[in-house]
Amino acid sequence: MDEPGTAPRGRLYLVPAPLDFGCDPVPLEQVLPAATLEVAARLPVWIAENAKTLRAYLKRVGASHPLAHPLQALRIQQLPRTVHKHGDQAAGLAGFDARDLLAPALGGDDIGLASEAGMPAVADPGASVVRAAHELGLAVIPLIGPVAPLLALAASGLNGQSFAFVGYLPTEPAARAARIRELEALALTSGQTQLFIETPYRNSALLQALLQTLQPRTQLAVASGLTLASQAIASRPVAAWRRGAARIDDRVPAVFAIGR
Amino acid sequence: MDEPGTAPRGRLYLVPAPLDFGCDPVPLEQVLPAATLEVAARLPVWIAENAKTLRAYLKRVGASHPLAHPLQALRIQQLPRTVHKHGDQAAGLAGFDARDLLAPALGGDDIGLASEAGMPAVADPGASVVRAAHELGLAVIPLIGPVAPLLALAASGLNGQSFAFVGYLPTEPAARAARIRELEALALTSGQTQLFIETPYRNSALLQALLQTLQPRTQLAVASGLTLASQAIASRPVAAWRRGAARIDDRVPAVFAIGR
Repeated sequence: MDEPGTAPRGRLYLVPAPLDFGCDPVPLEQVLPAATLEVAARLPVWIAENAKTLRAYLKRVGASHPLAHPLQALRIQQLPRTVHKHGDQAAGLAGFDARDLLAPALGGDDIGLASEAGMPAVADPGASVVRAAHELGLAVIPLIGPVAPLLALAASGLNGQSFAFVGYLPTEPAARAARIRELEALALTSGQTQLFIETPYRNSALLQALLQTLQPRTQLAVASGLTLASQAIASRPVAAWRRGAARIDDRVPAVFAIGR
Repeated sequence: MDEPGTAPRGRLYLVPAPLDFGCDPVPLEQVLPAATLEVAARLPVWIAENAKTLRAYLKRVGASHPLAHPLQALRIQQLPRTVHKHGDQAAGLAGFDARDLLAPALGGDDIGLASEAGMPAVADPGASVVRAAHELGLAVIPLIGPVAPLLALAASGLNGQSFAFVGYLPTEPAARAARIRELEALALTSGQTQLFIETPYRNSALLQALLQTLQPRTQLAVASGLTLASQAIASRPVAAWRRGAARIDDRVPAVFAIGR
């Protein structure tokens, strides 16, 4: 219960975005529940990876769920560039204090946290903001929407009862091959599915490296363009990948998974 | 392209269910996008963890999206009890061939795969069916809905750019403590958030074991009743958990996460 005379505190909502950032747009109702759209349409304050992307997203939300505040009246704070570029861990080392971004909640305003695509703080920056919300005693409410690594895992046919998401692999070829072998050994010995991602323009390079490095019987799943018209999901042993003409779209995000 | 005279093959849709199994129901529109409800309403054939639970779910879907086929006309196949109880890995060892369940797709029917709560094949059985679909060359389409471990991760404030879900911990106290220490060491040294679950009636026992076993500075997040009216999400260092009266609802599912 709040003390008499003090405003109730605002909450931090984690607001998922569609996975079509930089791609052909999909109808929002296809990927977001009505409740997610309703909350997004009423929040007055935002913390975003990128303010311009957030405005474009909220404009789409407003087409079906009228915005409670005009776009230009929204208070939008951007995550520091370090967080955007190097993740929350690096930001922590740099002494970034996300509590400052949450000041409006202490005055009673609900705040939305959004990334450019998918769920904030999952395979994307934002965890430092959520951590700060807990430190301040704010309620944290995750909303429902598409999460690329999870859709890829479900559709992979690989073990979904033990899995790990490890982010990006190194881009330098020798380091990348070593990391692929390390993840394969882990997946084969423990049975834990290993998921990772790559910047779209390097999708083909990563797929080729995987086919050159992995053992023939290791199962490899590749899910590209998830939720988009161009969605393509394949899962087969490496030996079968090698027999076919393995192709992947270098213009859309992809998730890769290996397992046994 | 299909050969002339052959029917196009059906697809395997992964259909998420709400997280309210065994709890007070939440409105489906709150947790599922319209597209998920539309597909669920039209599928003629299903593979389910439990046929009775699936019928109850589809009855709720039908209240807003009229079902294309009456409930009693749906063809519902249950996953074998071994898969339900021990997971897909055990089933593989038992020689279960999920391809038989997918025969209707070879005749052109779309099939839905559903678990009792959340996303099939993620923290739940079903991967063997997805694997079989890929072996048969069927398209696999994951639909969007709530996934408890991911909502918990996003709301935890723990590292979301490297994380692992490891399922259930042992219930025997000494083995459980050893596993907790192992997961804590992994989380602290690698920075990889470790997520796990417990059967609801053991939630309190697991929380007490965590507080007794973990180091004071380890960050512990507990998310119970996700998406339900009773949703409770807390994330703090173990030392702070110990200072408060740590309580958890033993009637609703919970996800636990540790990290640094």
